[in-house]
Amino acid sequence: MKDSRATILIYSPDQPGLVAAVTDFICVNGGNIIQLEQHVDKQEDIFFMRVEWDITKFLIPKDKIGEYFQTMYANKFEMTFRLYFNDYTPKMAVFVSKMSHCLFDILARYTAGEWNVEIPLIISNHEDLRWVAERFGIEYQVIKITKENKDEMEAKQKALLKEKGVDFIVLARYMQILTDEFIKEYPNKIINIHHSFLPAFVGAKPYHAAYERGVKIIGATSHYVTTELDAGPIIEQDITRISHRDSISDLVRKGQDLEKIVLSHGIEYHINRRVLVYKNKTILFS
Amino acid sequence: MKDSRATILIYSPDQPGLVAAVTDFICVNGGNIIQLEQHVDKQEDIFFMRVEWDITKFLIPKDKIGEYFQTMYANKFEMTFRLYFNDYTPKMAVFVSKMSHCLFDILARYTAGEWNVEIPLIISNHEDLRWVAERFGIEYQVIKITKENKDEMEAKQKALLKEKGVDFIVLARYMQILTDEFIKEYPNKIINIHHSFLPAFVGAKPYHAAYERGVKIIGATSHYVTTELDAGPIIEQDITRISHRDSISDLVRKGQDLEKIVLSHGIEYHINRRVLVYKNKTILFS
Amino acid sequence: MKDSRATILIYSPDQPGLVAAVTDFICVNGGNIIQLEQHVDKQEDIFFMRVEWDITKFLIPKDKIGEYFQTMYANKFEMTFRLYFNDYTPKMAVFVSKMSHCLFDILARYTAGEWNVEIPLIISNHEDLRWVAERFGIEYQVIKITKENKDEMEAKQKALLKEKGVDFIVLARYMQILTDEFIKEYPNKIINIHHSFLPAFVGAKPYHAAYERGVKIIGATSHYVTTELDAGPIIEQDITRISHRDSISDLVRKGQDLEKIVLSHGIEYHINRRVLVYKNKTILFS
Amino acid sequence: MKDSRATILIYSPDQPGLVAAVTDFICVNGGNIIQLEQHVDKQEDIFFMRVEWDITKFLIPKDKIGEYFQTMYANKFEMTFRLYFNDYTPKMAVFVSKMSHCLFDILARYTAGEWNVEIPLIISNHEDLRWVAERFGIEYQVIKITKENKDEMEAKQKALLKEKGVDFIVLARYMQILTDEFIKEYPNKIINIHHSFLPAFVGAKPYHAAYERGVKIIGATSHYVTTELDAGPIIEQDITRISHRDSISDLVRKGQDLEKIVLSHGIEYHINRRVLVYKNKTILFS
Repeated sequence: MKDSRATILIYSPDQPGLVAAVTDFICVNGGNIIQLEQHVDKQEDIFFMRVEWDITKFLIPKDKIGEYFQTMYANKFEMTFRLYFNDYTPKMAVFVSKMSHCLFDILARYTAGEWNVEIPLIISNHEDLRWVAERFGIEYQVIKITKENKDEMEAKQKALLKEKGVDFIVLARYMQILTDEFIKEYPNKIINIHHSFLPAFVGAKPYHAAYERGVKIIGATSHYVTTELDAGPIIEQDITRISHRDSISDLVRKGQDLEKIVLSHGIEYHINRRVLVYKNKTILFS
Repeated sequence: MKDSRATILIYSPDQPGLVAAVTDFICVNGGNIIQLEQHVDKQEDIFFMRVEWDITKFLIPKDKIGEYFQTMYANKFEMTFRLYFNDYTPKMAVFVSKMSHCLFDILARYTAGEWNVEIPLIISNHEDLRWVAERFGIEYQVIKITKENKDEMEAKQKALLKEKGVDFIVLARYMQILTDEFIKEYPNKIINIHHSFLPAFVGAKPYHAAYERGVKIIGATSHYVTTELDAGPIIEQDITRISHRDSISDLVRKGQDLEKIVLSHGIEYHINRRVLVYKNKTILFS
Repeated sequence: MKDSRATILIYSPDQPGLVAAVTDFICVNGGNIIQLEQHVDKQEDIFFMRVEWDITKFLIPKDKIGEYFQTMYANKFEMTFRLYFNDYTPKMAVFVSKMSHCLFDILARYTAGEWNVEIPLIISNHEDLRWVAERFGIEYQVIKITKENKDEMEAKQKALLKEKGVDFIVLARYMQILTDEFIKEYPNKIINIHHSFLPAFVGAKPYHAAYERGVKIIGATSHYVTTELDAGPIIEQDITRISHRDSISDLVRKGQDLEKIVLSHGIEYHINRRVLVYKNKTILFS
Repeated sequence: MKDSRATILIYSPDQPGLVAAVTDFICVNGGNIIQLEQHVDKQEDIFFMRVEWDITKFLIPKDKIGEYFQTMYANKFEMTFRLYFNDYTPKMAVFVSKMSHCLFDILARYTAGEWNVEIPLIISNHEDLRWVAERFGIEYQVIKITKENKDEMEAKQKALLKEKGVDFIVLARYMQILTDEFIKEYPNKIINIHHSFLPAFVGAKPYHAAYERGVKIIGATSHYVTTELDAGPIIEQDITRISHRDSISDLVRKGQDLEKIVLSHGIEYHINRRVLVYKNKTILFS
């Protein structure tokens, strides 16, 4: 059986004694620290911390930990924090369009049990990948979005997401731009894969742009979606070398291998509660 | 003793028979091909080729090869070509400012005999690196450029370059923007190092911009200088991973290791006649 | 419709005129060269070449090209060559054990039509991945190999491979060592993925060994299988950085992402006739 | 002016309360934590920690910190620790042979003030690089070591190192094997650069071996020297891609760029007190 664990992500104005305070809270109450990482952004003077601890013998009951921490520490040190428990399995929806490489990579990991996640729903604007969803036994809903019906269709999407209890969304080459309203309902909870090393080649057709510019390296970027296009907090990036011999279709092919890995790594960081977003940047706890 | 070699770089509209024609020219006349690489850009329908061959027993005298090739092949196939011989040592000027890392890397390679090049001159707008030049016994000229005297000072630079017979220029973190007039006199003969993976973070202070954007990868780019800032043909790029733990000064420090290697590799490609520029992109023969 | 193409892979003792001879053969007979790459190994004095050309209007009939080339060139220049045509779809068998990541990556690409290949058969020594094969509609045969029945079971495997007309075999983390007899029937036609950057960590449990040694980089290697364990010609390698924070299970997890990509790239090179094996090393035409 | 800082590196058997104890010691006594990183090796059940803190207003005097920490914490928790202060500049000797690339990289960084280190001495078995040392104004001692005089000459080396107060040694492609006696006097204080991704290609001529094996990636490794050849704790590794087109001399050339960077990064980690060695492996604090 898995042990019972809590994970806390914290940020606050920096000051002496923060690490000591948090670790004291855990130790004094019978917790055992499994992993601790802290970081101070000297430029912003902000303190960041992630602690994962064994709560099997923790004196404070699970549903009271947040309240106690708020009362005794968070108020005093102006901490913003989030608390997670490893006995909850987050629910993730995948939005796709016509390309299958990212979806396959996600489902292969999902099926192999790599991630502590549940996928109750795949949403698409096309029928193309229904067969993939069916092979993996996952519900596939086609919601055809046009310029005219966008608000209505997004309402339908949101209803589905709510019904399924979805915690976060992955855009696995979804190719549609979400409305600001939609995005605002899922702050730092929509992960997108962009097929360039951002901030280079924002927007449509980045491989064409990379080809035109004659770069020697192409990349992919997974990031949280914000209302500014391709400008949200970056989670993960990776690159591969190309040459003058590569046509645009070579870039697309080579890039797809990057996209699927970079997206899956981004998802993994998110699922494992290793990402803390502050001012449009991510702290990635290792 | 080194053997006697010629290198030809060619491009032309694509059509059948081009490789056969060029290799035939070499073989029939007693040359021995040492290296051949060709590439067809299917998008542009342009043929590119680099051939290096031993001319020790070549029937056509060295100073006639260009003329013969023009008459017999280039006219017929609409080829544009450049011809180089390995008994000529190109002359390279280095422009620097205050930072020493690229200059040191260049001079270390130069002194160790890594490159077939001569460095008759280092030009700077500051006195700071004179001692480096002196340690390596290379002439160091300070030409202080201001907004007011730019034309006059560039005239002085050009006079010096001419006097020394300089073939190409390396901007080793020179930090000054050259005038269009200057650039036009050295087409595809000025190599710059930009401290980002272009086209991301064009212009001043790319590490600051990278820090602000929260990228997980930083890069460096060596490219030929054109009149559009940081938009010239890219020769080489490389990257390194960073994290939220890296401050701007960490990025600067880590980036400098990229800059010096990427610049030196760009220089090496140029010296070895392995770069062909076509429509603002480079063909890099390996 | 796809055009009709031939690909020839050649090696021979080096001498002047080889490129000219081959290109002449193609051009004179109405072929159009699509891609040509040659390489001379100066150490061994061996010439290597790959040419892909359009044979739509080729004067020599497809089934006579080999004979004509042998008669007119190969004999004269002591060339060893292989000829392939793009209208033939090679057949590939996949051998698996219990781990699904490589198989999923292969089948995802296969289903998406990335490769010109047919997969008529998956062979395993376990039932575990039958469901994967079934989801993709591919025949899955379990042949349980033990020390005692190895010869008999390999005979059964070979019979199946013959029946299905299999051209080459991919060991997608198969975990069994093939007999020398088996290997000799498929020279340079069995592609294995080894989960280390060979020649480091040959044999079993390379991630454990990497962990013990405290390396900062792990890798994966796809190679052709020869009778010497993990010592065959390397097709492709890639690496990822690790740190002291990574446990053995982290290495396994991170390594799996390498394995699947490196294996799939190795397969792709093979399918596209871009690999030429000479003296236990590969020439990879780009 | 630089602030006054202490850095402590600790390891001990793991148990609850270690982080809290150490941070408490610092905070209660008026120190301000600048950076803290801890790591638990679950396999070995060992706790590792690095803390850097501002001691400007620390209540315990600098020369008593070690004693107090030992008395109050180290004894109780069975901690092994080392304490460093940023007002001490460590002294580093560089051992070289004939190749200049690593030495140049070290001296360029040294001269540019990149490192908090002093280089009072370069030792070589050849005269070849004396001119480099002289250009940088550093003492250069040639101690010619042969099989017959090794003990005597090492005694001479040790005398020189003692005279100069050398804290640690860098073998910048020194090419000589040190005796066990020598090595034991400098435990985890001799940094070597090996020109392969260890453990591949241990011993002499790794580039030749890499060429023979036909690898697609070459590497370099900086490590602490132990009495077993090329088997000491790895500090840093990096790699670069090669191809069949690369001759042995290409590997040497490409490898040199790796070697100098990987060695300099290893040195930097050491100088900045970011390396903790435990059971032949390094913990690298970031």
